[in-house]
Amino acid sequence: MEAVRIGLCGVGTVGQAVFAVLERNASEITRRAGRGIDVSVVGMRHDRDDFDPAPVRVERDVLAVARDPDVDILVELIGGVTTARELVLTAIAEGKHVVTANKALIAEYGNEIFAAAHEHGVNVAFEAAVAGGIPLIKALREGLAANRINWLAGIINGTSNYVLSEMRVADREFADVLAEAQRLGYAEADPTFDVDGIDAAHKLTILASIAFGVPLQFAAAYTEGIGHITREDIAYADELGYRIKPLALTRRTEQGIELRVHPTLVPARQLLANVDGVMNAVLVHSDTVGPTLFYGPGAGGGPTASSVVADLLDVVRGITAHPNQRVPHLAFQPDALSDVPFLPMSEVSSAYYLRIFAQDRPGVLARVATLLSEQKISIEALIQKEQAIREIDEEAWVPIIILTHRVKEAHMERALHAIESLDETRGRVMRIRVESLDAGL
Amino acid sequence: MEAVRIGLCGVGTVGQAVFAVLERNASEITRRAGRGIDVSVVGMRHDRDDFDPAPVRVERDVLAVARDPDVDILVELIGGVTTARELVLTAIAEGKHVVTANKALIAEYGNEIFAAAHEHGVNVAFEAAVAGGIPLIKALREGLAANRINWLAGIINGTSNYVLSEMRVADREFADVLAEAQRLGYAEADPTFDVDGIDAAHKLTILASIAFGVPLQFAAAYTEGIGHITREDIAYADELGYRIKPLALTRRTEQGIELRVHPTLVPARQLLANVDGVMNAVLVHSDTVGPTLFYGPGAGGGPTASSVVADLLDVVRGITAHPNQRVPHLAFQPDALSDVPFLPMSEVSSAYYLRIFAQDRPGVLARVATLLSEQKISIEALIQKEQAIREIDEEAWVPIIILTHRVKEAHMERALHAIESLDETRGRVMRIRVESLDAGL
Repeated sequence: MEAVRIGLCGVGTVGQAVFAVLERNASEITRRAGRGIDVSVVGMRHDRDDFDPAPVRVERDVLAVARDPDVDILVELIGGVTTARELVLTAIAEGKHVVTANKALIAEYGNEIFAAAHEHGVNVAFEAAVAGGIPLIKALREGLAANRINWLAGIINGTSNYVLSEMRVADREFADVLAEAQRLGYAEADPTFDVDGIDAAHKLTILASIAFGVPLQFAAAYTEGIGHITREDIAYADELGYRIKPLALTRRTEQGIELRVHPTLVPARQLLANVDGVMNAVLVHSDTVGPTLFYGPGAGGGPTASSVVADLLDVVRGITAHPNQRVPHLAFQPDALSDVPFLPMSEVSSAYYLRIFAQDRPGVLARVATLLSEQKISIEALIQKEQAIREIDEEAWVPIIILTHRVKEAHMERALHAIESLDETRGRVMRIRVESLDAGL
Repeated sequence: MEAVRIGLCGVGTVGQAVFAVLERNASEITRRAGRGIDVSVVGMRHDRDDFDPAPVRVERDVLAVARDPDVDILVELIGGVTTARELVLTAIAEGKHVVTANKALIAEYGNEIFAAAHEHGVNVAFEAAVAGGIPLIKALREGLAANRINWLAGIINGTSNYVLSEMRVADREFADVLAEAQRLGYAEADPTFDVDGIDAAHKLTILASIAFGVPLQFAAAYTEGIGHITREDIAYADELGYRIKPLALTRRTEQGIELRVHPTLVPARQLLANVDGVMNAVLVHSDTVGPTLFYGPGAGGGPTASSVVADLLDVVRGITAHPNQRVPHLAFQPDALSDVPFLPMSEVSSAYYLRIFAQDRPGVLARVATLLSEQKISIEALIQKEQAIREIDEEAWVPIIILTHRVKEAHMERALHAIESLDETRGRVMRIRVESLDAGL
């Protein structure tokens, strides 16, 4: 059979890695696919010192690649959403299949893109958009297709995880570790997307749609970054038997779907608590199989290229299949997506870690406990950190650390407002959610 | 689209679970597949107290199910290899697709079965044959298809893992724990296949073919059971920072492919050392993505049914595809399998744990060390267990525990023969292999 012809747009780290693996593993790939995969044209806006695709033809205008008659599959690796969206929609309109690693594009414009793909009978594959080299989308869409999926939770942003891991191991503050991560190339020059949870929310949005069969709704995702986590919190969590991890979680409840990314206390003995640095892991809980877990590198050229090229093989195999017989983009047939609502965060229940800065005098603890109990919040553990006592305006102040049982966020907000209004407390209460994701690991 | 019609042969635990999940999750499955999956006939040789498929039609002769014109896909869950082989080959000859959970059948007769399937243009799916509910075959065949896979290692027999876990936790002997596991239903009445490593070797044989693109060669698998492991060994391993796990490992080397199942010391901090009970986990090391790990329940009705039904969806989706465009049975196109040889165990290198029962007198240790060094075996750690001293024939005997560096098995065999021939040692040397499967977990 003739080789399939690829148009490769974007030759940064990932694009170069895709180019390299198609060459290095050409024989293994052809033995698997039954036909070769050739790059027929590379879209790159300007020359680069670190990459020369010769003898492969170069196009300066990436949109020309989407219209190139020598291209069967367009690989979009330019990033961003504006040009990328135009590029992908152009390729689809030209009847070309698309492979992309662009999580923002899929999370924000996926519904439009998949509708266009459906109309033109082409396939848009995006395994590399979530959890780098872990074949997680394949596992959810196909491997667990017999299951009603209940929830999934994971660490899907390597930068945040690296920063929190380093803060704990080296006992350093957020800003310090982030600056170093930027120097070392583990964090972007503009790390906002990573440390504010946007990147993880893009990925989680995609996972939720595939798990539950609902349209992509990035706007419904609650995100909270890790920038406010202090090394004290990390140390107190340790003391209580927890690690603070940048968790992404989506869960089906009777009221609606939870979709949230926030720093979370996870029991220290659990596997997810022990996933460090740039590794990703996602735990999936389904009705038929029970718990399954998928672990691997969540970013980087090689791992991302691994998923891009796996998608290329899938697309190549599906070319002769009837479009209705292909694996649906969002796991469920487009006309079978459901309109289950997403829950606002105020309706979500969670256990909480609280750090309250309060006067060290009789009655303060009782007052805090009363305000919590008025909102039906029960306390699981409480430590008053006498060794962290501080003198301010001739008054002794001390951090009080509380672990609560599960309660609806709206109740917690009311309790925190009341606690912060006390004369005997100072500043905002630090509040970090706690999840016990037990699955035998 | 019309529903696909299934003939379900075998209604033990797994068959009943498949029947149940097709009913319970019918709506989710149809929303994913775009068409229903109906059981049109059940093959069961005799009535059962625990299961009545009515109103679905029953056939007493399972071979009649393979010839039934109302069956599009035959699901083989009768187990064993004799009738199962005849059943599967009959269905294939009738132009029907097959889904099976039968690891022995695939490992021992897979080459013949896949050749017949290729000839008749049908698909034989077997995700449930390895690692229960973990979509591992899909991950290897499709998710990692861009990679050259270097090695994989895992815990793929729940019974052995349960027994070794219990021996450690409860400090009990093998026979004790096994008898209890049989009473509790965690082990078969005849546990030989599980505790002797045969079951794991069947699964590993399948994984090795898929990972490396070679024909199935069950006869090339080295298997060693766990029956000789004592609680002393488990305790000494603990002391040295290791757990003894029933490991299945296959690795590509320049000389050939290693294919082996044996109890193994694994560093206690690693994830694989902490997979307990009936859970399975497999670590895969590939050139492009690096390490990935897949974890989940390795047996049981629900998990196995999850994989059987996922296979049904895959087969349904592939029905309209050209057979050459389907995912090849052994991951690589049938005409592209390679003849890389499997390594005999004597050529395999490993580190070792040795327990030698020796006289407690000067010079004995030196003699043992000399015999090891004559075979170029270097010692990483050594403990003489003085608290385990025993008086026999007015002579004091003591266990000596040695961890060695990596050495070819043939050299170790020669050294052990020499050590066992010494007057100052008694009985066979206990020898357990050690693997440090580092992958950041």
